[in-house]
Amino acid sequence: MTDLSAVTSFAGTARPALRDELEKVIASAKDYGTQELHKMITYQLGWTGENAGPKAEGKQLRALFCLLACQAAGGEWKDALPAAAAVELIHNFSLIHDDIEDNGQLRRGRPTMWKIWGEAQAINTGDAIFALANASLLNLAETVSPEAALEAGKLLHTTCLRLTQGQHLDIAFEDQDQVELETYWQMVGGKTAALLAFSLEGGALCAEVDLKTRGYYRDFGYYLGMAFQVQDDILGIWGEEELTGKSTTGDLVTRKKTLPVLYGLAQDGEFAKVWSSGEIKPENAPQLAEILHREGGRAYTQRSADRMTDLSLVALEKADPQGEAGEILQETARQLLNRRE
Amino acid sequence: MTDLSAVTSFAGTARPALRDELEKVIASAKDYGTQELHKMITYQLGWTGENAGPKAEGKQLRALFCLLACQAAGGEWKDALPAAAAVELIHNFSLIHDDIEDNGQLRRGRPTMWKIWGEAQAINTGDAIFALANASLLNLAETVSPEAALEAGKLLHTTCLRLTQGQHLDIAFEDQDQVELETYWQMVGGKTAALLAFSLEGGALCAEVDLKTRGYYRDFGYYLGMAFQVQDDILGIWGEEELTGKSTTGDLVTRKKTLPVLYGLAQDGEFAKVWSSGEIKPENAPQLAEILHREGGRAYTQRSADRMTDLSLVALEKADPQGEAGEILQETARQLLNRRE
Repeated sequence: MTDLSAVTSFAGTARPALRDELEKVIASAKDYGTQELHKMITYQLGWTGENAGPKAEGKQLRALFCLLACQAAGGEWKDALPAAAAVELIHNFSLIHDDIEDNGQLRRGRPTMWKIWGEAQAINTGDAIFALANASLLNLAETVSPEAALEAGKLLHTTCLRLTQGQHLDIAFEDQDQVELETYWQMVGGKTAALLAFSLEGGALCAEVDLKTRGYYRDFGYYLGMAFQVQDDILGIWGEEELTGKSTTGDLVTRKKTLPVLYGLAQDGEFAKVWSSGEIKPENAPQLAEILHREGGRAYTQRSADRMTDLSLVALEKADPQGEAGEILQETARQLLNRRE
Repeated sequence: MTDLSAVTSFAGTARPALRDELEKVIASAKDYGTQELHKMITYQLGWTGENAGPKAEGKQLRALFCLLACQAAGGEWKDALPAAAAVELIHNFSLIHDDIEDNGQLRRGRPTMWKIWGEAQAINTGDAIFALANASLLNLAETVSPEAALEAGKLLHTTCLRLTQGQHLDIAFEDQDQVELETYWQMVGGKTAALLAFSLEGGALCAEVDLKTRGYYRDFGYYLGMAFQVQDDILGIWGEEELTGKSTTGDLVTRKKTLPVLYGLAQDGEFAKVWSSGEIKPENAPQLAEILHREGGRAYTQRSADRMTDLSLVALEKADPQGEAGEILQETARQLLNRRE
């Protein structure tokens, strides 16, 4: 597990406030004789059902980053709660639909929504959460200003389009023999980085900073997301060498087109030959990982991760986050980005 | 087919403008290497693919009503184009997801999106259109005012929640032996009436009328949607008697829990007995329709439709729509509401 101790103390204060905000927003979901819909939403948020609790709720890092960015940019973190709740809801709506699209069975250790309620109700509940996220965001008109709410709304809608563009590419990858590296970056930019970029920029927007500073927060979040995803790609193939307890070489067996794989395919060498010959059995995966390592796939991916990490930290430095919240942001970013060590 | 000649002339002017607005909004869907996503969206809108054209585009009545309401309430209909485009996109996003949820094969005479691109891409494209609708709406900040955009945003998000609440109930009906009449009204209120209510209220909002007048436009749209749905329920069982070419008694064969059926079940008489005994064959449907007629199901439903029609027309009178647009609204409402004659 990644060490995220830097954010622990703030999370202890912020998470209950976020919970209150979310409860307020989702209450309207049951006011039309739709208590079951409300129950589905609280299940997804990890509050109800079997094994409800902190693990089922997830780390809520995106929402916490949103609140921290607001405070570190000179605002009051509580004013950003409508935005943080929106981020958390958008994340959960996209998880529900992703799990249907990818045939995912488990999420945070529990059966996915569609496994329990069926696809039809799960698709629809994802849509309901999407609507609630949008509604939540506009509550910024009361905590910050109508102008900020409008501006944040525009940002969120662009972000959601990016999310679906990334997901579109990701689904399309499965049926493609070859994927351009550029397309990979577009996919990750949409699927992983866009919402984290919004979390940071939206938080800074709530502090009503100038456009330039907002851009630094956005870039910090964007490249943090990119770096995180690329590191995840490394861990998915070579994780076992560094970290115990992590299921490894799994991405090869599931034939996931991650960055090292795309690099290896582009080399058109031994890795590409084995990959193209068909199924990869778990017992052959370590050897294939070794071939990919030898052909430069690991070094290339690590260089990419390092580049994204640098871009993220440079942007954070330019954003110049202040006070305790600023320190927590800096420290948490470093902990996230150094998880391979 | 319903005679909607009153709106034809306005549609000739407004539809090309709506098309331009929609094209502007959805252009960003392809800017991330996602031309295929853009193509899926234009297919859904009826612009591309086999049998593209006016029939595939649909009547766009919701969007036209939005524009007419703006003009009739004292505004310029062109200022409401961002709202009308949003309505059209929300309607199409919900159709895509509904078709997956209901296993729908055909939509406006063409294969549904999921039949062509698969469920995963179709769910995701629905989400993309949802995001684009939200983005479109906020363009009202440029055509009307930032305050109107914010207010319309709040309305739209509540409307989308209502849509999903209605859909939740509708999906749940399938597994229920008995459905309360009250729950039926909540279902139709969300699934059919909410978006039409938004179309009218959103249009009036673009004319910056007072809250009371906005409420009249909303009620007009809401009860128009309700009346239309209830009439549809009648036509789905007894349509053949009045209209040629309409597939009839179909709702009995598919065991759809429409208002006359729920009324019949609540009577617990002969209709309820036959219904509960299992499958209804097409050849037995006319007789069952006759039983339901005898037990009062048709009269009850017609009274309900009349009540909704009255409420709709009273609200429209109070809204007092002005000029040619006002006349078109009045006339089209009457044509929609009298389609059984």
